[in-house]
Amino acid sequence: MEKLSTQPYKGTRDFYPREMVLRNWFFGKIRKTLEDAAFDEYAGPMLESLELYAAKSGEEIANEQTYHFTDRGDRHLAIRPEMTPTVARMVSNKIGELNFPLKWFSMPNCYRYERPQRGRLREFWQVNVDIFGCDTYEADLEAITSAIRILRAFGADETMFRVHINNRRFFNDVIATIAGEGEERARKVSKIVDKKNKIPRENYEKEMGELGITAEQIAKIDSLYGMSVADACALCPESRGAQELASLFDMLTKMGLDRYCTFDFGIVRGLDYYTGTVFEVFDLAPENNRAMFGGGRYDNLVGLFVKNQISGVGYGLGDVTLENFLTIHHLIPDLYTGGTKVLVTVFDDVPYEHTACLVESLRDAGIASTLYIGKKKFGKQLDWGVKQGFSHVVIIGGSEYEAGEAKVKNLISREEQSVKIDELIAFFA
Amino acid sequence: MEKLSTQPYKGTRDFYPREMVLRNWFFGKIRKTLEDAAFDEYAGPMLESLELYAAKSGEEIANEQTYHFTDRGDRHLAIRPEMTPTVARMVSNKIGELNFPLKWFSMPNCYRYERPQRGRLREFWQVNVDIFGCDTYEADLEAITSAIRILRAFGADETMFRVHINNRRFFNDVIATIAGEGEERARKVSKIVDKKNKIPRENYEKEMGELGITAEQIAKIDSLYGMSVADACALCPESRGAQELASLFDMLTKMGLDRYCTFDFGIVRGLDYYTGTVFEVFDLAPENNRAMFGGGRYDNLVGLFVKNQISGVGYGLGDVTLENFLTIHHLIPDLYTGGTKVLVTVFDDVPYEHTACLVESLRDAGIASTLYIGKKKFGKQLDWGVKQGFSHVVIIGGSEYEAGEAKVKNLISREEQSVKIDELIAFFA
Repeated sequence: MEKLSTQPYKGTRDFYPREMVLRNWFFGKIRKTLEDAAFDEYAGPMLESLELYAAKSGEEIANEQTYHFTDRGDRHLAIRPEMTPTVARMVSNKIGELNFPLKWFSMPNCYRYERPQRGRLREFWQVNVDIFGCDTYEADLEAITSAIRILRAFGADETMFRVHINNRRFFNDVIATIAGEGEERARKVSKIVDKKNKIPRENYEKEMGELGITAEQIAKIDSLYGMSVADACALCPESRGAQELASLFDMLTKMGLDRYCTFDFGIVRGLDYYTGTVFEVFDLAPENNRAMFGGGRYDNLVGLFVKNQISGVGYGLGDVTLENFLTIHHLIPDLYTGGTKVLVTVFDDVPYEHTACLVESLRDAGIASTLYIGKKKFGKQLDWGVKQGFSHVVIIGGSEYEAGEAKVKNLISREEQSVKIDELIAFFA
Repeated sequence: MEKLSTQPYKGTRDFYPREMVLRNWFFGKIRKTLEDAAFDEYAGPMLESLELYAAKSGEEIANEQTYHFTDRGDRHLAIRPEMTPTVARMVSNKIGELNFPLKWFSMPNCYRYERPQRGRLREFWQVNVDIFGCDTYEADLEAITSAIRILRAFGADETMFRVHINNRRFFNDVIATIAGEGEERARKVSKIVDKKNKIPRENYEKEMGELGITAEQIAKIDSLYGMSVADACALCPESRGAQELASLFDMLTKMGLDRYCTFDFGIVRGLDYYTGTVFEVFDLAPENNRAMFGGGRYDNLVGLFVKNQISGVGYGLGDVTLENFLTIHHLIPDLYTGGTKVLVTVFDDVPYEHTACLVESLRDAGIASTLYIGKKKFGKQLDWGVKQGFSHVVIIGGSEYEAGEAKVKNLISREEQSVKIDELIAFFA
């Protein structure tokens, strides 16, 4: 019979124990950071009705980007490409019982049908952090603060990342001030600004010109990029967006978080979905200087499901992106060694139950430990333990057994000593 | 526009924060127990080639029980219904590098296309524990011991569960001894024994008769059910299966684990897949007296992928089953309260940065805490904190701010006291 391929499906990953230690460290730190900031974790099913994504992003995008299929009950299902529709559904489903404002997070695996490339895989995990049910800047501040805390928890500092912040309401108002009224026009300008750095300057000017923006107005808009928040906000002081931006930066400064943050008029986030504060977190490493993740405020989270209006602010952070960032900045420690992990070797001339019971008592005391499983010579057992990253080997041969002792070998320092069997737990504890 | 349904897809679950606390407690305990026993965690992709399941279980079962579909590259994919094919593929892929014996575990979500019913959902999590690359009874002992440790970690004792153990090799040999040689015949007998408790006695006898088993032979087989391991093994002392069974029970007894275990000739595990030790863990609760999960030894893990032979022993434990068990035996504690979690309320007459910086410093010290996010009256803020399960509320109004103090209210004991701002961290730590 022909043998099957041993490769994982394109764009997905196998996590062998070494990679899994990294994942658990990674998600453990994020969970602890968010729990310390009193965010509550939630989770939802990996399959949802396809219409959830079609209603949010349009039928075409939903069909193209998701894995979808029809079940035998003729339900059209999708493997989630993102978490927002699920959380919107969940919030809608218990809208009368939930204790708003909600500070929620989740760490789902998601699937997107795309060509695998650096930073993008078909299966990825995405940390989702959101605050629902508070529409003032304090929630924006808390969301941004939590993103900074996550990166700081990994040891990142202000030389490594920067949060670029803008406000969509401010953007619309300042464009109106400079180039005349019109929400639809501001929206079109935002699309051009969004791609400014990706297109030649002359195309940028041409597209702006097509919207009736004069060269003088373009120059004014250009000047916003280098401006301080205060100067920018002074251009339209009555704007709610300007006030939100000013309050947010005032507080970031007073909290000493301004060293991680910068005002950036170029951040608009493509999606029309965003309505207020928007932000993107940039990697400052020269070789990876780009937006890693971002988020912002949206005003109509639950509109697809219920009549209520609930606004939210949040962001999504992918595992592949974060791992790249940590790797580039050398923020991943040696996770495989460290901590006590004890291998007890076995010998034919010592009753198996003697060593087996010893291991059980070590485990009862919370000391990670195992017998060598199987019948191999001592050298092979020791090799196995070294390769597995054990910190200690406990050797109880015939003579140690007779004496009620064990030889304990530290595999890192290579020291060896004799310890009484009934003192072993205390030795390792 | 018509609103979308807020219900999760049939047979799947939403995990709101309260349920998520339970899940994290649950998986955290299992992970800690297995890590203490020096098992390594791994994970794999949720999508695999459909042929992995078709090759293991047959095309028909794979098509019926899995969610499967074809991607645009014409690959026929399935959402994993179980983890074994994935781990077999992973082991095969690095067979030359891996450090055998492997002690591995995983906690994947899996999907099965079935009618949702008590204990069975379409989306479930399954803890998979396996030892690969050791074919002697010591690995069987370690696998069974780990299952007992998991249940004990939740506070379960010998009045609540029992591990029923048999051996397929022994089974075949003892059937041959009683009723004559023939592996194919023993296999057919095992199928009838497997369903003995589910069919009327007369059908059982009829089916056995059709295999040429006489009434006298049936009586001999019947007598095996009440027999001690020693008496049963004495029927075919030369059998490798009998020796494995004897060694296993000898060691379970010497380790004091026999109070959790029993020999049960009726355990054969339907699948032909199993070759040696087999076991099932029963709930002893009268209202739920049934097998919760099981496993055993299989000899050809990697055969679909590579020429090597690797044997393994392991089991899979579903989250729904385990949660039912813990609920029935009242082993789920109050997880939502307990631990320090601090709400700092906000007032208009106190600078926001004063309270915001205080919260940041509490979080830096690892104390779970938050400001109230938004502008509400004190009473509303307090209500929110109580509903969220906070342990303490820190109140800094205008007068406390002036005095450099905070009022701290314990929401459980209802005690209230004044604490200097710069002593707050020490107060909670």
